[in-house]
Amino acid sequence: MTSLPQTPLLDSVATPQDLRRLERKDLRQLADELRAEMIDAVGSTGGHLGSGLGVVELTVAVHYVFNTPADRLIWDVGHQAYPHKILTGRRDRIRTLRQGGGLSGFTKRSESEYDPFGAAHSSTSISAGLGFAIANKLVGEPGKAIAVIGDGAMSAGMAYEAMNNAEAAGNRLVVILNDNDMSIAPPVGGLSGYLARLVSSAEFLGLRELARRFARKLPEPLHRAAKKTDEYARGMAMGGTLFEELGFYYVGPIDGHDLDQLVPVLENVRDAAEGPCLIHVVTQKGKGYAPAENSADKYHGVQKFDVVTGEQTKSAGGPPSYTSVFAKALIEEAARDSRVCAITAAMPSGTGLDKFESLYPERSFDVGIAEQHAVTFAAGLAAQGMRPFCAIYSTFLQRAYDQVVHDVAIQNLPVRFAIDRAGLVGADGATHAGSFDVTYLATLPNFVVMAAADEAELVHMVHTAALYDEGPIAFRYPRGNGVGVPLPEVPEALPIGKGRVVRHGSKVALLSLGTRLAEALKAADQLDAKGLSTTVADLRFAKPLDSELIRKLMATHEVVVTIEEGSIGGLGAHVLTLASDEGLTDAGLKIRTMRLPDLFQDHDSPDKQYDDARLNAPHIVETVLSALRHNSSGVEEARA
Amino acid sequence: MTSLPQTPLLDSVATPQDLRRLERKDLRQLADELRAEMIDAVGSTGGHLGSGLGVVELTVAVHYVFNTPADRLIWDVGHQAYPHKILTGRRDRIRTLRQGGGLSGFTKRSESEYDPFGAAHSSTSISAGLGFAIANKLVGEPGKAIAVIGDGAMSAGMAYEAMNNAEAAGNRLVVILNDNDMSIAPPVGGLSGYLARLVSSAEFLGLRELARRFARKLPEPLHRAAKKTDEYARGMAMGGTLFEELGFYYVGPIDGHDLDQLVPVLENVRDAAEGPCLIHVVTQKGKGYAPAENSADKYHGVQKFDVVTGEQTKSAGGPPSYTSVFAKALIEEAARDSRVCAITAAMPSGTGLDKFESLYPERSFDVGIAEQHAVTFAAGLAAQGMRPFCAIYSTFLQRAYDQVVHDVAIQNLPVRFAIDRAGLVGADGATHAGSFDVTYLATLPNFVVMAAADEAELVHMVHTAALYDEGPIAFRYPRGNGVGVPLPEVPEALPIGKGRVVRHGSKVALLSLGTRLAEALKAADQLDAKGLSTTVADLRFAKPLDSELIRKLMATHEVVVTIEEGSIGGLGAHVLTLASDEGLTDAGLKIRTMRLPDLFQDHDSPDKQYDDARLNAPHIVETVLSALRHNSSGVEEARA
Repeated sequence: MTSLPQTPLLDSVATPQDLRRLERKDLRQLADELRAEMIDAVGSTGGHLGSGLGVVELTVAVHYVFNTPADRLIWDVGHQAYPHKILTGRRDRIRTLRQGGGLSGFTKRSESEYDPFGAAHSSTSISAGLGFAIANKLVGEPGKAIAVIGDGAMSAGMAYEAMNNAEAAGNRLVVILNDNDMSIAPPVGGLSGYLARLVSSAEFLGLRELARRFARKLPEPLHRAAKKTDEYARGMAMGGTLFEELGFYYVGPIDGHDLDQLVPVLENVRDAAEGPCLIHVVTQKGKGYAPAENSADKYHGVQKFDVVTGEQTKSAGGPPSYTSVFAKALIEEAARDSRVCAITAAMPSGTGLDKFESLYPERSFDVGIAEQHAVTFAAGLAAQGMRPFCAIYSTFLQRAYDQVVHDVAIQNLPVRFAIDRAGLVGADGATHAGSFDVTYLATLPNFVVMAAADEAELVHMVHTAALYDEGPIAFRYPRGNGVGVPLPEVPEALPIGKGRVVRHGSKVALLSLGTRLAEALKAADQLDAKGLSTTVADLRFAKPLDSELIRKLMATHEVVVTIEEGSIGGLGAHVLTLASDEGLTDAGLKIRTMRLPDLFQDHDSPDKQYDDARLNAPHIVETVLSALRHNSSGVEEARA
Repeated sequence: MTSLPQTPLLDSVATPQDLRRLERKDLRQLADELRAEMIDAVGSTGGHLGSGLGVVELTVAVHYVFNTPADRLIWDVGHQAYPHKILTGRRDRIRTLRQGGGLSGFTKRSESEYDPFGAAHSSTSISAGLGFAIANKLVGEPGKAIAVIGDGAMSAGMAYEAMNNAEAAGNRLVVILNDNDMSIAPPVGGLSGYLARLVSSAEFLGLRELARRFARKLPEPLHRAAKKTDEYARGMAMGGTLFEELGFYYVGPIDGHDLDQLVPVLENVRDAAEGPCLIHVVTQKGKGYAPAENSADKYHGVQKFDVVTGEQTKSAGGPPSYTSVFAKALIEEAARDSRVCAITAAMPSGTGLDKFESLYPERSFDVGIAEQHAVTFAAGLAAQGMRPFCAIYSTFLQRAYDQVVHDVAIQNLPVRFAIDRAGLVGADGATHAGSFDVTYLATLPNFVVMAAADEAELVHMVHTAALYDEGPIAFRYPRGNGVGVPLPEVPEALPIGKGRVVRHGSKVALLSLGTRLAEALKAADQLDAKGLSTTVADLRFAKPLDSELIRKLMATHEVVVTIEEGSIGGLGAHVLTLASDEGLTDAGLKIRTMRLPDLFQDHDSPDKQYDDARLNAPHIVETVLSALRHNSSGVEEARA
């Protein structure tokens, strides 16, 4: 552990009010101290490093120029907001980042009045900013909204939808496009190329030119005519026509690490803009910390690291991650079948598809942060005979729900959904939890929904999905490492809608879906030790259910408990519905469903989260015992 | 009934192959006959009129120039595809449009090989087209994909996501922007203004200029350098820079009713384009039929009408529609409370908000086809203290599911969701059915989910939502007219999570959510007549459930049946989960859940659809009787 960095100026800044009392010439030093503090903090906690380092100067400049929190500063995604947290009264807790009970790794309304709108998924900031701006306009409040959004986030449809509506906000909306040519992975697509052309074709604006341009904007309507005629000319020189066509006044590109550019530009926009303004700021991810500057992708999210060497704490070895098992299995399917394609929405590394891409570049598609397009694009591929795999985190697939329903399920097209980060995810918290996918997919006609109980099962499910051409099929698997079972030499095609009994008993039946199976098996051992003979089934399929197996287990056991890593409406609901449809419980049967609780769980270690969710072995045991104690009059008997 | 129009040339065209054998000079006559046939057909069936009339020439030209069905023609939304259906082997069934067993009002894969990708929701065509194009590229097939998309649909984020990815398709992708300055309502936002400027600033291209431009593109790399330098200049003259910046070659604007422009432009694009091409075609909605030309909004979707006078068959009076009851109730809330705002995504008339807009224009927001933005914008408004109502059809709210989860539910912001078209919707079929909203909303923590049993209930729910500031709240109501109950003079604030018993009995309890209540009451009368005393409860809330009431009814009745207008995972699942959580059924209780079936139902009359879904009174009676016959050994006894 190194000693804390020396930060005399930062020590005097408890809030943005203090910051605004500084001389402009002191801001450089403040930024340097802020950067040192942030590197030290993330070194001790791990977390998102590169993106925060890239916006140190921007953070200082925005709080210096704008009247936060009355002016609403909205960080898109929010993982770049660590310097913002340090400057807005949370410095004393900055070394608790992403730990249970500590600060969130994203912006969060409950943490601070300086976080007016929480985030974690990308591309929401302009819409939210418009909401703030227009609410202020309606009630006559003076505040502005400032949305800071990355170039990668700009590829998402909702950012475009918001830009298309920005004119209504007038000059109460300021969008700062933080262009670091990098979201998590390098961005893709037409917009990215466009931004690159803007940056390469234009020098950063000199102060004099900036002053000239803003002066020109001041006295209305004097310059209105002049402005119209030179709009396209400016577009050519400056390149901002795309944004200007959508109704923004475009300023840039400017150097996002040069406070002598940032501060006057922001002041001018604050005081003189007549309509919504987009400031194109160029920054470097990882700026000011050599290891991060040199490897922006690797330093996007980090483990704890040594500040001097940049070396990250290695995670203890152990079994391979589900993500890497999926990627390897898909590569094998691609080797067998030239119709297998892979699609990611800007998460090649997170989904493991970077490995696929290096082997099958022509069958690998990174569409940018564009889940909606990803799914319908996959539907088009499927309709033309390919076998597309859409690899999208559970929580991000929510972005494409209508496409899943309308383009895939209704048309019964065989799109394969590889749903990573199913269930609770640990340090990323509620916004990244994969809690709802079984519910929102299994309610759809035509869908097959699987969950892998371990990494060997995942390999079988990839193979099953590859071969299944009847309609849409999804398989979910969690964040983190497998349980250590050997991987199959040859993957099997699982029979659709069939579960498996992994442990035979006679009194209690545990019906598991997904990786709670390990906990169910532990619980079964404990129940057996108490004389309660316990069956454990891995249902594999939430849809179609193995109705034959469930019927049989219900007929032969006294207590049936379902266990899943998802919210209400999923496996448990489907099992209960089957039972009531068929009258299996008419004469009495103790059924319980164990699922995620009806609340959004904050970040913590995954195991602690599952403990809080009451989905570990002791809770399964407790649920069974409680059901058994429950007497026939519907009242729980006193504990023995 | 007028006699059928004279169509000698059209009579000779059974398929696009026949069409392609015609001389180019004959196309004008064919288009005229096609238009006459379409007007006559829609006059007899009702349906979407204006949009099809606007693309008669375009339909003829595309099939004439491209090699359909090998070239994949994808109509965005698909409601403009009636002329396409007439030309692609479905003329003999065109007078069955939107009727049970007849042709769909949209494109549909199962109807024809000429419909490679079904639609109904907007803005999917470019993504799907990219899928087709790239699949062909991967397997070395020659076919192109042609996506025809309206200017309104271009405002949706997924269209932009797709455009941003178009370069990968090379010249296999042709996008035809059908600019009629009108989706269902006039489009809004920056893009719309941009397109208007394009059209107003440029003359339609002369043939000579077109020839010159395409010739210039042919010999590569000769003209590459020249092209680069004149790219911006062309943008200025032609205005297409926005699309060109995203990677398209832009051609236009051209007159979409002039076959002498359309055919050569399409031929040139087919033969000479080097990359993805966007052809900007200007059309008039309703073209060639005076009543429709003069009132494009009114003639978007029509009842049967008299072809000569244009007069539409009036629907029989009756009670007001739920939509209009909602709008009136919201206007009253807005009069009481200046914080009430209304948001629609391009459906001002469909949601009834046009009436709100005329009274409260400053608090009314039509954001275009942009549901994602609509929801997060509303979240921003709510975070700043307003009381926003998002009025979105159930099926379209799927487009904003992640925003509902991430921006509204996780942050527990009081956004009000007015969910129109809940349940089955009749002639619009599966793509427009509101089947899943209770499932996908009630699984979310923090959400309150209501369903109105009749129009008076709807008024109370609007009021309840207006006053509820604790978090997100949704209320759903169906398409069509109310049941005729008197509307309340003064709306009540309903107690959150409390149902009501509307009929008291002792043996059977029917738990209804939504407008099946009328059928439940009919069923109760029939059951009573059979000596089965029946209670009927209107639960009002799917979440939070009225657990006290449910507990009581389960304790005092022999059979409990839930009835809802939604799919599995909704009310029934929540009631079953409550019962199993509390062990209410441990000692035996006959519970059944009645819900939409696990399949996508085709278009038909709503009552027929509910009959097929087995959710009318006779089915409720049958379900109760069957449950009562079901004996304790789990086998249904022989019918008496």
